Amino acid sequence: VAALTVRSLSGIPEVRPGDDLARLILEAGPAPPPGAVVAIAHTVVSKAEGAVVALAQVSPGERALALAAEQGKDPRAVQVVLDESAEIVRVAHGVIISRTRHGFVCANAGVDASNTGDPDTVVLLPRDPDASARAIRARLAALAGAGAAGPPPAVLISDTFGRAWRHGQTDVAIGLAGMRALEDWRGRRDASGAPLHATWIAIADAAAAAADLARAKDSREPVAVIEGLERFVVEDDGPGAAALLRPLAEDLFR
Amino acid sequence: VAALTVRSLSGIPEVRPGDDLARLILEAGPAPPPGAVVAIAHTVVSKAEGAVVALAQVSPGERALALAAEQGKDPRAVQVVLDESAEIVRVAHGVIISRTRHGFVCANAGVDASNTGDPDTVVLLPRDPDASARAIRARLAALAGAGAAGPPPAVLISDTFGRAWRHGQTDVAIGLAGMRALEDWRGRRDASGAPLHATWIAIADAAAAAADLARAKDSREPVAVIEGLERFVVEDDGPGAAALLRPLAEDLFR
Repeated sequence: VAALTVRSLSGIPEVRPGDDLARLILEAGPAPPPGAVVAIAHTVVSKAEGAVVALAQVSPGERALALAAEQGKDPRAVQVVLDESAEIVRVAHGVIISRTRHGFVCANAGVDASNTGDPDTVVLLPRDPDASARAIRARLAALAGAGAAGPPPAVLISDTFGRAWRHGQTDVAIGLAGMRALEDWRGRRDASGAPLHATWIAIADAAAAAADLARAKDSREPVAVIEGLERFVVEDDGPGAAALLRPLAEDLFR
Repeated sequence: VAALTVRSLSGIPEVRPGDDLARLILEAGPAPPPGAVVAIAHTVVSKAEGAVVALAQVSPGERALALAAEQGKDPRAVQVVLDESAEIVRVAHGVIISRTRHGFVCANAGVDASNTGDPDTVVLLPRDPDASARAIRARLAALAGAGAAGPPPAVLISDTFGRAWRHGQTDVAIGLAGMRALEDWRGRRDASGAPLHATWIAIADAAAAAADLARAKDSREPVAVIEGLERFVVEDDGPGAAALLRPLAEDLFR
């Protein structure tokens, strides 16, 4: 019997550029214990890093103007999406699905017009979400000091992605430090000795989804602490959420 | 602050056709409280319903033989996948991605060669997973008797699906009774008054992923009980996991 608990933190204030997010997290609740996973909605990480664009500063180009007219969108916001995209995958139903500079395939290159704190700004994804996760993890560990035995809490940065064939969105990991992204059962066998079919579990994405269940979308609860995943938390920061990206050569749905 | 807890049940025996799964669940642990979500890996539901095929009974047709030769698979297993598929979406890297009779887009039409209890059989998805969830919910409620106030525990049946652009697999809901599949925030506003971007959350899929984190893949722990989702649990069985299917007309990636 395994048990998982997820608690969201209330009391994180509106985050501004330059804010020390690790400090805000520690001030909002008890220090996450060793082996815990601190799951953070990317919006506050982006804001702390200043990854925010004032639409008044954006001059949409020809392609943005055309796409915006066709899809009924703000051409300045579309320009930001294009700037954040390495490749446009599909455009339909008012959504631009692209591959971001990081390699994520998602709607609007992860550019958020809500939860920005200001209707005339948009929030981008962090420039390097795995690096952001590593920095927050190190800062949390430094501020909390030497605690109980075990690896320092892992940090998971999430965004909310749609899915190609299912309605609705779920949170996935876009940045990760100190937690294995995937649980590899390839080559192992089930309880009856047969090779396992579901052999490569995206535990970081499952953890992101679980964290999102513990917070309400309209509230200021961008952070949740997960306990019960100690078996996936490691001392090293590891390869991060980049390990979850399917390489272009294996993409069957471009 | 919201809190979510997930506990897997140990002590569920190997399930056989005709088994009373609700009784096995109640015998394996304390009765799930009102408002809880009982998350069940579909394999045991399929087995209890007899949705199991002995490969010795399968005569592969021409298409199955060709696909099997091309992808290095057992032609009899490929024939079962074709039988369960309404449409083949992609074939590559030894995987057949199809749309099942139910409308799920997934690898190998959800046909499992592992966790079958017998290497010469494959396990199908339940014929109507929402109906299965409703039946198990009703049976759980009947066996548990009138308990505390609140809606009877919801039942969620999951399978493990891959994703088009991300490595690894996560559990999703394929059958559901008594829980809302989606949380609809469309038209609502964030804490600062801006329209919400991520507005339609697939809470049933997030719950399926959370449940999977609480069990080990090689152990006989097909059932997990989730508490903390009471706000999504309803008296009526509701439309089930079918509400999560994106209609063909909106599919950008066929």
